[in-house]
Amino acid sequence: MGATDRRTKVLRASLDLIAENGVRGLRLEDVAERADVALSLIYYHFGNRIDLLRAVFRYANEQAASTDIFAASGRSGYDRLEAGMLGEMRGNSVRANAVVWNELTASAVFEPELRDEVTETTRSWVQGIEDTIRSGQADGSIRADVDPADEAEIVASVLDGLSTRWVSGSISAARARTLLKQAIRQHLAPR
Amino acid sequence: MGATDRRTKVLRASLDLIAENGVRGLRLEDVAERADVALSLIYYHFGNRIDLLRAVFRYANEQAASTDIFAASGRSGYDRLEAGMLGEMRGNSVRANAVVWNELTASAVFEPELRDEVTETTRSWVQGIEDTIRSGQADGSIRADVDPADEAEIVASVLDGLSTRWVSGSISAARARTLLKQAIRQHLAPR
Repeated sequence: MGATDRRTKVLRASLDLIAENGVRGLRLEDVAERADVALSLIYYHFGNRIDLLRAVFRYANEQAASTDIFAASGRSGYDRLEAGMLGEMRGNSVRANAVVWNELTASAVFEPELRDEVTETTRSWVQGIEDTIRSGQADGSIRADVDPADEAEIVASVLDGLSTRWVSGSISAARARTLLKQAIRQHLAPR
Repeated sequence: MGATDRRTKVLRASLDLIAENGVRGLRLEDVAERADVALSLIYYHFGNRIDLLRAVFRYANEQAASTDIFAASGRSGYDRLEAGMLGEMRGNSVRANAVVWNELTASAVFEPELRDEVTETTRSWVQGIEDTIRSGQADGSIRADVDPADEAEIVASVLDGLSTRWVSGSISAARARTLLKQAIRQHLAPR
């Protein structure tokens, strides 16, 4: 197994453990065990715990960026946006991603070293939404009189707020999706 | 100092420490030191760490409920709603509350014992928004053709999403307030 493979195994093991137990429960010893590598190798490749968290954040971001959830040929910008966003609140692997994202964002509140990654990841996610809004404005499926950057940040915030309610158990996934759909309609459907 | 006073000191010390270091950094020894009480007293009054967190959650909720942020005489429902919600993203003490709320909600993802408190606190906060929306619909300042319960959950989610971005440093408080104001307008202003 090459260095890149081992590095990827460590990152995947970290993501799985964060999804299961949260950042506060993440011990490097457990990561080593789950990834089946020596603890010294984690220190060698990633330095300390914060450096590992930063690398996990970037890795999660790369994974997310590698599949364009708003791409679907032959559909309007509005439909692609709605389908892509609703897909963020469905299924177990998506739930795990939402949990990891929540955890890393929450950690950044207390660990300023993580803030650049949070800001960058947030920015690229919001940019994808903004691009899809612009494409919907161009094809007439999204109202033309709204600012795409502002609306992208707002609907991304609605999704985050609903997603937190979903993963913490205060509303069902079905209710969260209904409300997200309604929010997107009120913000972006032509009047 | 009576038992109630000591109990309150422990709860306040816990809130302060969570705002400073997060739930993951909360050690009962530090709470005892900050509250200037014996560690044994914390175990005696609160049982274990999870029971303390549940009590902290309820205490934070009671504090929030004791001041009705949507109450202001002589103003429309819309204006009271807007002012009350914008007030949630301004100033250091409010920031501390937002951090505590984020932390406790995030903890509930991994600690099911906290879920009832999260659900109940979320419900009573959303209920306050819903009541204010209804009052705005009655005085004509909020559009009549929307469902108050749905809209309350959506604007509360926008606030949570923006608030997380604010406390984790990915957007400024000013930008968060501008976007919240805009979201409230799009959802609730009469057309």
